[in-house]
Amino acid sequence: MKKVSVIGAGSWGTALAFVLAENGHDVLIWGRRKEQTNEINKHHSNQAYLKNCTLPESLKATSNLELAVEHAEILILAVPTKGMREIGAQLNTLLQQPKILVHVSKGIEPDSLKRITEMLAEEIRPEARKALVVLSGPSHAEEVVLRHPTTVTVASADSEAAKEIQTLFMNSYFRVYTNEDVLGVELGGALKNVIALAAGITDGLEYGDNAKAALITRGLAEITRLGVKMGASPLTFSGLAGMGDLIVTANSVHSRNWKAGNMLGKGSSLEEVTEGMGMVIEGVRTTKAAHQLAKQYEVSMPLTEALYSVLFEGHEPKEAVDWLMSRGKKKEIDEFLN
Amino acid sequence: MKKVSVIGAGSWGTALAFVLAENGHDVLIWGRRKEQTNEINKHHSNQAYLKNCTLPESLKATSNLELAVEHAEILILAVPTKGMREIGAQLNTLLQQPKILVHVSKGIEPDSLKRITEMLAEEIRPEARKALVVLSGPSHAEEVVLRHPTTVTVASADSEAAKEIQTLFMNSYFRVYTNEDVLGVELGGALKNVIALAAGITDGLEYGDNAKAALITRGLAEITRLGVKMGASPLTFSGLAGMGDLIVTANSVHSRNWKAGNMLGKGSSLEEVTEGMGMVIEGVRTTKAAHQLAKQYEVSMPLTEALYSVLFEGHEPKEAVDWLMSRGKKKEIDEFLN
Repeated sequence: MKKVSVIGAGSWGTALAFVLAENGHDVLIWGRRKEQTNEINKHHSNQAYLKNCTLPESLKATSNLELAVEHAEILILAVPTKGMREIGAQLNTLLQQPKILVHVSKGIEPDSLKRITEMLAEEIRPEARKALVVLSGPSHAEEVVLRHPTTVTVASADSEAAKEIQTLFMNSYFRVYTNEDVLGVELGGALKNVIALAAGITDGLEYGDNAKAALITRGLAEITRLGVKMGASPLTFSGLAGMGDLIVTANSVHSRNWKAGNMLGKGSSLEEVTEGMGMVIEGVRTTKAAHQLAKQYEVSMPLTEALYSVLFEGHEPKEAVDWLMSRGKKKEIDEFLN
Repeated sequence: MKKVSVIGAGSWGTALAFVLAENGHDVLIWGRRKEQTNEINKHHSNQAYLKNCTLPESLKATSNLELAVEHAEILILAVPTKGMREIGAQLNTLLQQPKILVHVSKGIEPDSLKRITEMLAEEIRPEARKALVVLSGPSHAEEVVLRHPTTVTVASADSEAAKEIQTLFMNSYFRVYTNEDVLGVELGGALKNVIALAAGITDGLEYGDNAKAALITRGLAEITRLGVKMGASPLTFSGLAGMGDLIVTANSVHSRNWKAGNMLGKGSSLEEVTEGMGMVIEGVRTTKAAHQLAKQYEVSMPLTEALYSVLFEGHEPKEAVDWLMSRGKKKEIDEFLN
């Protein structure tokens, strides 16, 4: 039995807290809003994020971050990528001893082009962290709390910490694999949102399953190409945090990134989409970052470029897709795989 | 303008004839039943296979195989894998001069473990064939005749013939890539049906998107492993004829293989499924072949083995999936990727 705190009471943070509490750990979940933490403590539910889900009674919640930090040997950071530095800075102040920090978010910071473990390493002093771990993979929170079979991967520069987190989460419906390629796991999780957004656009254009399958295939090939150039393993992109997560995101009406793409494909502007969804669309930020990375690493990413031109340069989605389809006669290895 | 005959008037043969006729070629399609070829000639439709589709008036049909063979410089073979040897033997008798033969089917013959170009090479004497070509990729026929963007790959030991077929089919909505890896293209197209069948089972069990994404990821890894051991390129399995086709098949209610798996997952027996669908389920035959190939090439294929045990050894689907989920703590690279 471990003492764990989950920082962030959105759907994913709550689902992970559910798994940990079911595994018999002493779990405290932190949320910003007192009404929400009261609901978890009194009614064992978090309706705004996980409808019709009864949380284990042993799962406690608090809106006091200091308490959450003190409670735990292991902290699970389940906050949006955009808020990661702010939480990191607060943790840096609150952490008295080194603890294992596991993040479960996906994204790359535009301009700095930092991954999440890199941001955390900048915000939190070394003496306050025992290890940085990333957990990623194809995992709708809604299915996890129904105890449907789910597989994820954990990666860390500290392989002992990765194994400890594997043991912490593993049970009959939640399988955890370890992977030594932190770079690949973080890049795969982030970059797949770019492709999921583009897949949403082709669905919005009603281009059908053939076009979408081609786009996903080509998309995975191009983010793999970038990842490998940056030093990641191509196998990680063929695994759970790459292909697995991409399939689940690009084919799901629950995915915010797919949904945003779908609205764009149907003719909404980026402003309308952002306002309509009332929340950050991670894939939009990541498309900017991917565009910058492609330039910096001199990797050809035609799909990312087409999406960038739609999001930030006012091109029509149909125009961009037609451009992708209208290039000359090619060998598959040149167009998709190199 | 080329003279082309399409042998087989099912949905895929008809859709390819549609593309070729739209491209301005002189196309004759052969079907066994006279009512069907009459319908194509008089009403420009093939309702039993492609609902609500108007075929080009220039597309002619015949039920006389000899006529179809005489008509063409290029023959497109669009018959079920099970009937391929029989058609090959007939062509061997009818072909007076060598012609390019393109097959568009997917499968591996159980016991002989032959691919389709291998079967054709056995049935048709070398003087009667100019080149053997395979065309494969993510391509629902229904979407092609709606002119939705579709991409496929063609491969041949004769790279000039592959380029000729690329030019023959290519247009604004139908993109054709060439690939030199005939082995990989044929194996990918065939073996992906095994995984699509398994994906149908998890859907039938209502295990959700997380489980299905894991299964597809793991499935692609294991058929890639087999293909590479047999001499194919791993890149082909990451391309249109591998991953692309797998995604479209495993996520489509139109796929016979997915549908058969779905019925199995919901509790039907294999006999009930086969009778209920009234047609060959290619993935069932291919699972037997894949099981034999795994043994012969000494490749670990746990998913194929689990499916084989359900199809041919009377195991319950749930039992097989639970077995897959309940193995010990692993590194991702050991379980998924090696």
